[in-house]
Amino acid sequence: MRKGDQTVVFDAPPVIISAAAVAGKMEGEGPLANDFDMIVSDDKMGEESWDMAEAKLQETAVELALKKAGADPEDINYLFAGDLQNQCAAAHYGLRDTGIPFFGLYGACSTMTESLSLGAMVTGAGFSAKTLCATSSHFCTAEKQFRTPLNYGGQRTPSSQWTVTASGAALLAPRGNGPRITSVTTGRIIDRGVTDANNMGAAMAPAAIDTIAAHFRDTGLRPEYYDLILTGDLGIVGSAILCELIMEEGFDISAVHNDCGKMIFNIDEQDVHAGGSGCGCCASVLCGSIYNGLCGGKYKRVLVTATGALMNTVALGQGESIPAIAHAVAIEI
Amino acid sequence: MRKGDQTVVFDAPPVIISAAAVAGKMEGEGPLANDFDMIVSDDKMGEESWDMAEAKLQETAVELALKKAGADPEDINYLFAGDLQNQCAAAHYGLRDTGIPFFGLYGACSTMTESLSLGAMVTGAGFSAKTLCATSSHFCTAEKQFRTPLNYGGQRTPSSQWTVTASGAALLAPRGNGPRITSVTTGRIIDRGVTDANNMGAAMAPAAIDTIAAHFRDTGLRPEYYDLILTGDLGIVGSAILCELIMEEGFDISAVHNDCGKMIFNIDEQDVHAGGSGCGCCASVLCGSIYNGLCGGKYKRVLVTATGALMNTVALGQGESIPAIAHAVAIEI
Repeated sequence: MRKGDQTVVFDAPPVIISAAAVAGKMEGEGPLANDFDMIVSDDKMGEESWDMAEAKLQETAVELALKKAGADPEDINYLFAGDLQNQCAAAHYGLRDTGIPFFGLYGACSTMTESLSLGAMVTGAGFSAKTLCATSSHFCTAEKQFRTPLNYGGQRTPSSQWTVTASGAALLAPRGNGPRITSVTTGRIIDRGVTDANNMGAAMAPAAIDTIAAHFRDTGLRPEYYDLILTGDLGIVGSAILCELIMEEGFDISAVHNDCGKMIFNIDEQDVHAGGSGCGCCASVLCGSIYNGLCGGKYKRVLVTATGALMNTVALGQGESIPAIAHAVAIEI
Repeated sequence: MRKGDQTVVFDAPPVIISAAAVAGKMEGEGPLANDFDMIVSDDKMGEESWDMAEAKLQETAVELALKKAGADPEDINYLFAGDLQNQCAAAHYGLRDTGIPFFGLYGACSTMTESLSLGAMVTGAGFSAKTLCATSSHFCTAEKQFRTPLNYGGQRTPSSQWTVTASGAALLAPRGNGPRITSVTTGRIIDRGVTDANNMGAAMAPAAIDTIAAHFRDTGLRPEYYDLILTGDLGIVGSAILCELIMEEGFDISAVHNDCGKMIFNIDEQDVHAGGSGCGCCASVLCGSIYNGLCGGKYKRVLVTATGALMNTVALGQGESIPAIAHAVAIEI
């Protein structure tokens, strides 16, 4: 690794040997429904609170990823996970019974690629024989924690996004069949002064630009190397900013760019305004549709860049702006 | 790494080339005062809120660790950090201007050894030439977030602990002068059903037992190998539980055990009940007193095990118990 370089290119790329995606009812009515391993009929999942429902969602995704690989929790050396709940409660309560050595992450909606980045590094280095990476989000936990009580019924602005109720989990190994993580580009915290909590796409787009441009500079690759340059949850507003402003860095990604927040819903019909968001948005799209597309030959090379907004409600209430981050993971087969 | 093993022993142990500790006023009146690099006279650090004061604390510790090593932010490949504030706001706001590729962690009060564990792995694997690990806590941000408004004046129970106002940062490199991280043992989430938020020591002690016992089983070492087996913030109550119950695992650590929460304050005189707590407790004791003791010949082999309680106020309010975790890092010179 060179000074100033943000990218690790693996000599022995770790393999994603299985992936699982669990989605909520509304996500299960969207265009990616066929790629989810499970669509829940009740977003409360039989739990007494939304918070514990999200924990159950994450637990279920991890169980399914293990099952699909024929692996047991005792086979797993590390579990990297986190979520948007205060103190990452969904991961802690959902995964506490696994007994797997656990690293808790907070990367907001960038958590899926943060966990894959660290999971790929410990697996690629030979420190782990099997590594799980997971995250989740839930519309109801996010809404009540970050915005307003669920039954308040406030108007949503056109730039606002709909937090996805879903979870995704991926299982990495040094060898095996499946798509390989060939490189990871780690993001820096970028804050361009956006203070509008109802326009996360605009707050996070500069972080995506910074990381994707760093990826191309560090690797010497060009956008056309990839079949798909996928962002996590920039939505319609943030995606437009990304595609326009990254041109100034000398990279035109518009022909191959898409965004999980735009893909997961029928935006015109499902009343989600600027698209989906939340850790579970990138997690469930990547571990469902994209993973299946890689395994099935639809994609050969995908650069996944999940973005996260790193504020909390206290800081925003005190007039602070929104720092953001994006982590990129290149997946090839 | 073997199946079921929680420990990585490094072939080429990464070196802690510098460390810095910044402490609040009350911590600066305690017995470890001489080992802090800076003691702040005003716990608000000139900021308008306690939240931003904690951010400033973490920023200052990182700057000092860089300065002591003669390093610039551009020299650093990765920064691992987190804290107790909702969505880890102290790290995000305090470190957003560093421009260093950033991995956000949530391990509650285990964050210092979580960051050192991951920092040691990416550095030991050759993915990073220089890696920063940092965390912080602040009495006022923790009290208002987890318990009651600061001016409420509720009675504190004898088992309660005093959240330390402090930050610590450590800089790792593959080579250099200084103590080396020889192994890391990663904790599992352990929940023994404790629901008393005023008795964190009891909630976290089972996690410390699980991880320390795993360390000895994985490495074949015995407690007497170490000059010091240090826990993060079990305080008086949790330390007693640890030393008694780990005997059942076949390990008597009582002759070499101490706890940062017991060390940082004059417990009888400073009205802190069961001792200090918070991410900044282990961080400032380790990056101050212990690091200096290793460099100065007082210690040769130290096993540091910071412990974290992984609940949030919502889960506790819903009647949930407190999951906990502990990560161990062996440091030798």
